[in-house]
Formats: sequence, structure tokens, C-alpha cells
Amino acid sequence: MPRIHVIVASNRPGSNGLPIGRWYARQLAQDGTADVTLVDLAEVNLPFLNEPEPADTGRYVHQHTRDWSATVSAADALVVVMPLYNGSFGAALKNAIDYLYAEWRDKPVALVSYSAGPSGGAPAAEMIRPVLTRLSMRVADTTVAIPRVNALIGEDGGFLPPEWLPEAAAAQQEELTGLLTAGAATAPAATA
Amino acid sequence: MPRIHVIVASNRPGSNGLPIGRWYARQLAQDGTADVTLVDLAEVNLPFLNEPEPADTGRYVHQHTRDWSATVSAADALVVVMPLYNGSFGAALKNAIDYLYAEWRDKPVALVSYSAGPSGGAPAAEMIRPVLTRLSMRVADTTVAIPRVNALIGEDGGFLPPEWLPEAAAAQQEELTGLLTAGAATAPAATA
Repeated sequence: MPRIHVIVASNRPGSNGLPIGRWYARQLAQDGTADVTLVDLAEVNLPFLNEPEPADTGRYVHQHTRDWSATVSAADALVVVMPLYNGSFGAALKNAIDYLYAEWRDKPVALVSYSAGPSGGAPAAEMIRPVLTRLSMRVADTTVAIPRVNALIGEDGGFLPPEWLPEAAAAQQEELTGLLTAGAATAPAATA
Repeated sequence: MPRIHVIVASNRPGSNGLPIGRWYARQLAQDGTADVTLVDLAEVNLPFLNEPEPADTGRYVHQHTRDWSATVSAADALVVVMPLYNGSFGAALKNAIDYLYAEWRDKPVALVSYSAGPSGGAPAAEMIRPVLTRLSMRVADTTVAIPRVNALIGEDGGFLPPEWLPEAAAAQQEELTGLLTAGAATAPAATA
């Protein structure tokens, strides 16, 4: 079974990202075809990038970098649940990306954005896309953007998904699985 | 005299941004037409955005936010000296921007990027531009991109500007001054 990490890409206290991420992780796991882990950047708690050498050297002096490297390496594919701040992605996500390099290569990733307004955070996903492709990640074409998110958080703090979301999440999961299969098909050929 | 803040938009230990920012601040101050202050984000030392309310409410509960608000408000115009990480801007800059809202409005800003490679970090400047315009900042058309920056740091850690840089910095300063004058010209008309 593919191991999919759902990354909550906000470390802001009380972020809407955590309830959305929890829902998404449950949703991806429900048919039993994936081993899904929730990774909350607030819990990962990386400081601002403080490695003395560029990430592409792979020489990490800090334990928090080695731990983050191990977390990302353990995933076959990623789903990133990301907020929109001022028309773009937030600092926590970019910081977590910039810590690593080789760990991202060839990894399939799907983007889920959300926002208080009507865009659903789509501009944030489109601005992080060239960063991810530059790192040779395989970014799913299918993006999911969840608008007016404040109305979708219940009194118990749980996420109340809009009616269309389960189908959109399923389409995204299907594309992610396809990317994983494509990767697996390529690998033996390369060693033949 | 206009007060220009030169913001070093990296908080990475040993960043090349600090020597470049120091040079830039001296350069802008040398003809005596501007009151120039260096603002190093490593020294400002903001944590990841942790305000409970959105910045556009202007309700800040943390002293670090109030201090940062005062620093930005004290400037008539800004020069941002920014690194390129993975084809885009770094987390420290986005974090510092996302802390505030009204403070940015109408403020002229010029972008100076740098990189170890041949792009000079221009993609980072072009990716932050829509964020700044969305905040209603007046972004100078003239951007400065400094390539192959590792070869431009002397043994004493000082910045060795390429031959073309003083003229480029002067053009940028001229545009910034023009934006300030345009702003000043508009202000009395609005109150008339």
C-alpha cells in the first residue's frame, strides 16, 4: 500500500488547516488502499531555515532537519493542505520545503488549498507549483480549492466538507495513485 | 528627507543578504538626499506568524507585531534585499509581510534580489511582486538582480559590488524618489 502523508502546511495557532487535513487523511484512508499519515507542520515545529550549507548538499547539522528529512522520505506521495496568505503560500510551507532537496525528487504531490474568501486559495497552489516542479516533484494536475472555509468549521472545530469535496478528493487520489504507478513502472526499466 | 528602510529579507545565519544590504544602505545614503536605515530580519527576529486575528483587522496581541508595525510605519519607502530559494522568495520575507496589512498600503518599494546562480534571484522578485501589489504597495519597475553572489563576498565578509551595480542602484533610487514625490503630490489634492 502506498504511504501518503497529508501535510498541514500552516503552523498558525488555530489554523483551519488542521481540521481540513484530518478530514482529508480520513477520506484518503477510507477505502483501505493507502496508508495515510497526518503531518502537522505546527507539530513538526521547524525553526526558520538555519542549516549552514545549502540543502542540495544533503549535509544537515541540525536534528530537526534530519527528523524532517526522515518524515518526508517515509512518504511515497504527499498531499499538501495549504492556506492562502496575501495571494500566495504561507511562510511555514516554503520554510519546510527549503530545508530539504533530494527528498522531494520525483515524489508525487497533490495540492489542496483553502481560503476565507471565494478563491479557495487557488493562487497559493499555483504559486507553489513552479517551486515543486523545480524540485522535480510530480505535481498532480488536479488541484482542490476550498472557498469560504470559515463557514465550514463546525462548533466542535471539525471540518464540514462541501458536498462536492469527496468526489474532488477521490479524483485527486486517483491521479496521485496513477503517478505512483507510473513511477513504479519506470523504476525497473531504469535498472534493466 | 525621505526615510528609506533597506530590509535584509533573509534570517539565515551567515546570509549574503546582510553585506549586500549594508552596501545598498550606504549607497542610497551617500548623496545625502535620503535618511537610510538598515533593517535586518535576522535581528527583527519575528517568530512564525502567531497573531490570532487576521492582519487586516490591525488588532495585534503580540509585542513583536507592534514593534514590526512601528518599524515599517516609520519608513516612507522600502528597499527589499532578497534571496532566491528554489525559484521563489524565502519564508522569512513572506512571514514578515503577512504579519501586517495597513502598514504596507501605498508604500513605494524597490526589489533587489541575489543568488548563487546566474539568475540573480530575479524569479524571487517576480513572485513576490503580485503579493506586494495585492497589498497596494507601489512596486518600482526597476528591479536589480545580482548573480553569482558567492564570488562577490570578500575575505572580510564585505560585499564587492559588480561594476554595473552603482548605476543600477541609482536608477532604482531615482524611481523610488519619483514614486514618493508622486505620492506627496496626490496627498494634498485628496484633502482639498
